[in-house]
Amino acid sequence: MAATPADVKEYPNAYVFIVDMPGLKSGDIKVQVEDDNVLVISGERKREEEEKEGVKYVRMERRIGKFMRKFSLPENANIDKISAVCQDGVLTVTVEKLPPPEAKKPKLVQVQVA
Amino acid sequence: MAATPADVKEYPNAYVFIVDMPGLKSGDIKVQVEDDNVLVISGERKREEEEKEGVKYVRMERRIGKFMRKFSLPENANIDKISAVCQDGVLTVTVEKLPPPEAKKPKLVQVQVA
Repeated sequence: MAATPADVKEYPNAYVFIVDMPGLKSGDIKVQVEDDNVLVISGERKREEEEKEGVKYVRMERRIGKFMRKFSLPENANIDKISAVCQDGVLTVTVEKLPPPEAKKPKLVQVQVA
Repeated sequence: MAATPADVKEYPNAYVFIVDMPGLKSGDIKVQVEDDNVLVISGERKREEEEKEGVKYVRMERRIGKFMRKFSLPENANIDKISAVCQDGVLTVTVEKLPPPEAKKPKLVQVQVA
């Protein structure tokens, strides 16, 4: 199972995972969350065409086959708000952050004037 | 200048060069022939976005910058018949073959009957 290069960026409101997937279409790629906090991106690249009569590979450097990347998500990742877009062979997965816990408001005690 | 993986296939009528170029659009890629027999494929990949306030790279594995591949073309490549298509981050350049030289026809000598 081959790996594929990825960038990870942190935005104020989200984590963004960018993975090179040349030749793959959206339908060839699977994005899922395992164990509540592991983002798993997987897929399979096949050769455009099997070798057939009259066609021969003179050079074969491009990697094919199954690949997978796993990323541990930080605690404040909102696994219910994940979106994925694939364009020009680059997959971008955006995981929104949970809002920070609200600061406890000071409790106002009404003082009754006697 | 980085390289990028390529496959080369030979068909009965053409040579086909397939190069992974994730994230590049047709306009970012240059295909040319140098010295009559060298196919040169070049381009530049830039990050989708420069680092800016509030955004930080947690991981940076994807290669960016200029890249180039050169391929020596066989003698029977027809450099006037080259086409290039980029789809899903994969560039496919097709170079047609010149037709094989025609076998010399036997010369028919008319024999006059005296």
